[in-house]
Amino acid sequence: MKRTTKISSAVIKRLPRYRRYLYELKRKGVEKISSKEFSEIIGYTASQIRQDLNNFGGFGQQGYGYSVSGLYNEISGILGLDKDYKMVVVGAGNLGTAIGNYIASYKGGFNMYAAFDIKEELIGKEMNGYKILDNDNLVDYVEENNIDIGIICVNKENAQAIADRLTFAGVKGIWNFAPVDLEVPDWVAIENVHLSDSLHSLAYHIKDIEKSKIKIEKNAKKGSE
Amino acid sequence: MKRTTKISSAVIKRLPRYRRYLYELKRKGVEKISSKEFSEIIGYTASQIRQDLNNFGGFGQQGYGYSVSGLYNEISGILGLDKDYKMVVVGAGNLGTAIGNYIASYKGGFNMYAAFDIKEELIGKEMNGYKILDNDNLVDYVEENNIDIGIICVNKENAQAIADRLTFAGVKGIWNFAPVDLEVPDWVAIENVHLSDSLHSLAYHIKDIEKSKIKIEKNAKKGSE
Repeated sequence: MKRTTKISSAVIKRLPRYRRYLYELKRKGVEKISSKEFSEIIGYTASQIRQDLNNFGGFGQQGYGYSVSGLYNEISGILGLDKDYKMVVVGAGNLGTAIGNYIASYKGGFNMYAAFDIKEELIGKEMNGYKILDNDNLVDYVEENNIDIGIICVNKENAQAIADRLTFAGVKGIWNFAPVDLEVPDWVAIENVHLSDSLHSLAYHIKDIEKSKIKIEKNAKKGSE
Repeated sequence: MKRTTKISSAVIKRLPRYRRYLYELKRKGVEKISSKEFSEIIGYTASQIRQDLNNFGGFGQQGYGYSVSGLYNEISGILGLDKDYKMVVVGAGNLGTAIGNYIASYKGGFNMYAAFDIKEELIGKEMNGYKILDNDNLVDYVEENNIDIGIICVNKENAQAIADRLTFAGVKGIWNFAPVDLEVPDWVAIENVHLSDSLHSLAYHIKDIEKSKIKIEKNAKKGSE
């Protein structure tokens, strides 16, 4: 029987993390793991794990645990990692180069095809197995090579225009590093990596820890008075 | 009266995004905004916005709306963005360089001090206003310069050891780009940017969209039979 219920987006968000831990377990030769043992390494509660993994069969057996490689393969399949993806990066500055090279050295189904930039001095440059091409050829290249994913590493002023061109050329997904929320039609998947949002969360947590330290010190002082 | 209740982590996660939109509104000269207008641009519901912003006074007045700059300053303060942070990056490869230069060109309280690497050919190299130094001097440098934040851009095998050294040297926060969950004591804030988790979420969404397309096509075929 095929499942027809949709997995919640909160569960989906946790799947890459489950997969990452399962990969490490596999690498260490672990074959079975109970929800309790898994809980201790991944940091979710055992009941959360059982609930999450029940969403897709889960491969768990009472008193026996989960099959590490079975679960790993199942999650990989759900995430669409049993397929190959052709990728380009738009913007070959520091970040675009870093992300392009990250994909180029990625072991798995993500394949780097080309980078695009407007700067003449960059065009034609050889990277790790791919080239920097002229931004003017972006749409043609994406269409001709059936590129699946476009990575956006341009500044926020140009990001929407690039997203529009990638969408027009037929990409299935956009991985956006520009600090702006892009508008794309329903049939294009989008995933944002907002570095500044992450940095600001870090600043908040630092401030929050400082505040509790001050509170503890004040209370300690009061207690010794 | 000072608030003593803690703001939930879900609200905190949304604050950088509120701040980003408020910044754009400020830049465009908008002075007041209602929760309904804000809802249309930021994509949260108006009631969600009112609920979130009520957590910290919120600056909203019935029938009048929020003060854009008042709210912007309030959120900046909550996020700890009214302070300055001294930063170093460990690992001066492609990603470390990209993140280091990102911080070096950041307008705001985040200041790049130095990069660290073990590769002799990189040590001494001048970057955008900072230098690559020998990894062996990491602890001394962080202590002497009162560095607040360490950015980890090394591979996953070395990431925990670097986190330990940064913690020992007294950083307040770690911005981790290595694909591993690090263990740090309670008094060190940690924020992870797991690029592979984000990429896998994108792959999932692409697959999910494909599946719904196939379903729609099948139904259309059935309908025309």
